[in-house]
Amino acid sequence: MPSIDVCYSPELLHLYDLKGKAVVAVDVLRATSTMVTAFAHGAADIIPVMQLEECRTFGEKGCLTAAERDGIKAEGFDLGNSPFGYMNGNIEGRTIAITTTNGTRAIRLSEEADEIIVGSFLNLQAVAQHLKELQLDVLVVCAGWKGKFNLEDTLFAGALVERLQYEFESENDATLASLYLYHTAKADLLAFLRQSSHVRRLENLEIHKDIEFCLRHDEYDVLPVWKEDRLVDLRAVKELES
Amino acid sequence: MPSIDVCYSPELLHLYDLKGKAVVAVDVLRATSTMVTAFAHGAADIIPVMQLEECRTFGEKGCLTAAERDGIKAEGFDLGNSPFGYMNGNIEGRTIAITTTNGTRAIRLSEEADEIIVGSFLNLQAVAQHLKELQLDVLVVCAGWKGKFNLEDTLFAGALVERLQYEFESENDATLASLYLYHTAKADLLAFLRQSSHVRRLENLEIHKDIEFCLRHDEYDVLPVWKEDRLVDLRAVKELES
Repeated sequence: MPSIDVCYSPELLHLYDLKGKAVVAVDVLRATSTMVTAFAHGAADIIPVMQLEECRTFGEKGCLTAAERDGIKAEGFDLGNSPFGYMNGNIEGRTIAITTTNGTRAIRLSEEADEIIVGSFLNLQAVAQHLKELQLDVLVVCAGWKGKFNLEDTLFAGALVERLQYEFESENDATLASLYLYHTAKADLLAFLRQSSHVRRLENLEIHKDIEFCLRHDEYDVLPVWKEDRLVDLRAVKELES
Repeated sequence: MPSIDVCYSPELLHLYDLKGKAVVAVDVLRATSTMVTAFAHGAADIIPVMQLEECRTFGEKGCLTAAERDGIKAEGFDLGNSPFGYMNGNIEGRTIAITTTNGTRAIRLSEEADEIIVGSFLNLQAVAQHLKELQLDVLVVCAGWKGKFNLEDTLFAGALVERLQYEFESENDATLASLYLYHTAKADLLAFLRQSSHVRRLENLEIHKDIEFCLRHDEYDVLPVWKEDRLVDLRAVKELES
């Protein structure tokens, strides 16, 4: 039986052996939720980059550019980090270069893994189904908040563990903690998260609507995976092939 | 109002500013529980060291030496890491040099803090009471398991937060998660921890009796704090002074 484990911060990733594993990179508020939304609305591929400058150079090559720093859209870029900015047909068929504070880092630091999947509540079922088919050991890599543990990514990990618990070994401490926290919170995730001072700081940035949206389960049947140097939607690729 | 935060691993300590803070170092299974037990049974002071070799040199200076590696007493040392090894009058008035896998590390990495307190369920109330008097911001530093998150230290953090929550700000994500996990587990901490594969590995080493003991709340009115280069029991020091 394959196993599922949870890494609470990119700062802890060096403690895990990623070879032969499937990594689920998650930054619920809002990087990975936004990427999933972008694919659901027709993005061709997404290039996650670490630095603003690097992101800008992709703009010169005809890509759309997306950047957020400390919760706010960075100046001089086409798109920010709100999923609602990706819904009006403006990104169909386009390549998007995106840099975000935490989420990009979690993806780029996981390149040793056999497969990197982008997870969010929005595509939870697509991720769970794919992992059941893959049959690899799974490591959920939470982006965290500036390197520290955060609740929203942990709750996503717990939601994923809940869907996989009978087909994956889930007795690691971080896995158990995520599952229990999700059980405690699931009746009202938003109310639960509102106790968090970090989430309240985000709400001060007027992204309340985003937060509510990012907590919806199974909104999109989208499966962003890392291929060579970018993210593609495996669902769309398979559709093209069939 | 001072705040209480929780750091889930020494590997995350560099993300926190320890200056002006009180650190509670915790390694419930078993380093800090054993240190607390040693003071309760008359140890004069305890010198936590990182390496086996360094620990051995203290033996040549007339100290008792205590060492554990991977859950087992290391060869050639006077004491191991089981609290029951410290209860038969053998340590009264003695200085003990102790090295353990995770616990020593958490203490030595926290030296920037204004005060370092050794915490365990056994001296929970003494720690809580002292922190209320100190009125410093608190960071609970969990030793973790080989750098990773572990449940038992997190549950201790939650128990401490529960006792401080009305007098300390406790809205950090790690603080909230610890508190909720403690609420979920507190009716039967042992049964809760037995789900953990890492705790089951410890039980295979026949330390079942130790684990049960280390989960007892408020067993000892003991308060080990870091003074210059060693731990002393603040309760005993105050008694001598008065």
